[in-house]
Amino acid sequence: MKCGRFITLEGGEGVGKSTQVRALADALRARGLEVVTTREPGGSDGAEAIRRLLLEGGEERWSAPAEALLFAAARTDHVDKLVRPAIQSGKWVLSDRFIDSSLAYQGGAGGLGIEAVRAINAFGIEGWFPDRTLLLLHPDGAERARARDGDESDRIGGRPASYHDAVEQAFRDIAAAEPDRVRLIDASGSPEDVTERLLGTLEDLL
Amino acid sequence: MKCGRFITLEGGEGVGKSTQVRALADALRARGLEVVTTREPGGSDGAEAIRRLLLEGGEERWSAPAEALLFAAARTDHVDKLVRPAIQSGKWVLSDRFIDSSLAYQGGAGGLGIEAVRAINAFGIEGWFPDRTLLLLHPDGAERARARDGDESDRIGGRPASYHDAVEQAFRDIAAAEPDRVRLIDASGSPEDVTERLLGTLEDLL
Repeated sequence: MKCGRFITLEGGEGVGKSTQVRALADALRARGLEVVTTREPGGSDGAEAIRRLLLEGGEERWSAPAEALLFAAARTDHVDKLVRPAIQSGKWVLSDRFIDSSLAYQGGAGGLGIEAVRAINAFGIEGWFPDRTLLLLHPDGAERARARDGDESDRIGGRPASYHDAVEQAFRDIAAAEPDRVRLIDASGSPEDVTERLLGTLEDLL
Repeated sequence: MKCGRFITLEGGEGVGKSTQVRALADALRARGLEVVTTREPGGSDGAEAIRRLLLEGGEERWSAPAEALLFAAARTDHVDKLVRPAIQSGKWVLSDRFIDSSLAYQGGAGGLGIEAVRAINAFGIEGWFPDRTLLLLHPDGAERARARDGDESDRIGGRPASYHDAVEQAFRDIAAAEPDRVRLIDASGSPEDVTERLLGTLEDLL
């Protein structure tokens, strides 16, 4: 039996990840593949229950390390209940955010350390790292997210430009350390052009 | 300001930990110390909320790594909200179980590996290891727990003797690796005698 593949889309706010997950899934299905799309945080019942726990109470409810451990537990459940079974049954899984979001937001911009956050996540997902991670970069991402979300801007979207710069730098550092897994994608231009660029980086896996 | 101390009592089922936490707290208070007693799993609101999540659903709800991450997150909250503030205000904290229970049950007997479980916990508690850990050993502990709990025996208490032997061996391995922090205590004989033995191992901290 042919094993599926695990592809994740990553990047800061407003770079077009969710649009591209849908478009890339359609493009892969047009090539005859079975594709499952998912997203983090969440993606499984257990992960959603942990997410509700994370959202209860105010900013002071959980310390940064406690939050990182809860995110790692949620991701472990996501892999156990959705990602691994789908891939083992031959499907491709596309996830809107995965481990690299924890590395960039909590490890890099949040100051916990990329390697420390990677270690607690690696403990949980036990080798189920993505086959490829597509890091979408858009020079106006943070501005586009603010324009889109307006007053609905969440507590991350509403942070200052320096925070978004730190997130992007952390993503770039991760990509530089793992050039085979993580590919930088220019997310400017038409959505169709971006989807073509994404597909181009997956040719060796098809 | 004099900083308090962090003392944990560990051991398998039926060795008398909760009785000795109370007796040791009384003995320390009689020496003029302010003492807070606590226990795991639980010990803070966030830790209790995580514990409820762990108890929801059946045995298959969480994988062993997900469960270990949730326990580590609960312990982090316990340290953040109760242990550290109490010690920083000069109190002694006595906890019925702490990190070594995760190391012995999940890391050793559960097969996740003592060092791997130690690493995810160390990430969360950030250096707040106990000043001293008292490992209570009783040759008939598992039998006494079964006699005490009867049909109420929980899913750990009800496991076979080989499991309890593996837990005790893991506890002994941890003690051998950290002889200054972890002290072996003979928990047989009268409760008063055991309390005296416990106090004797704390003299250098008093």
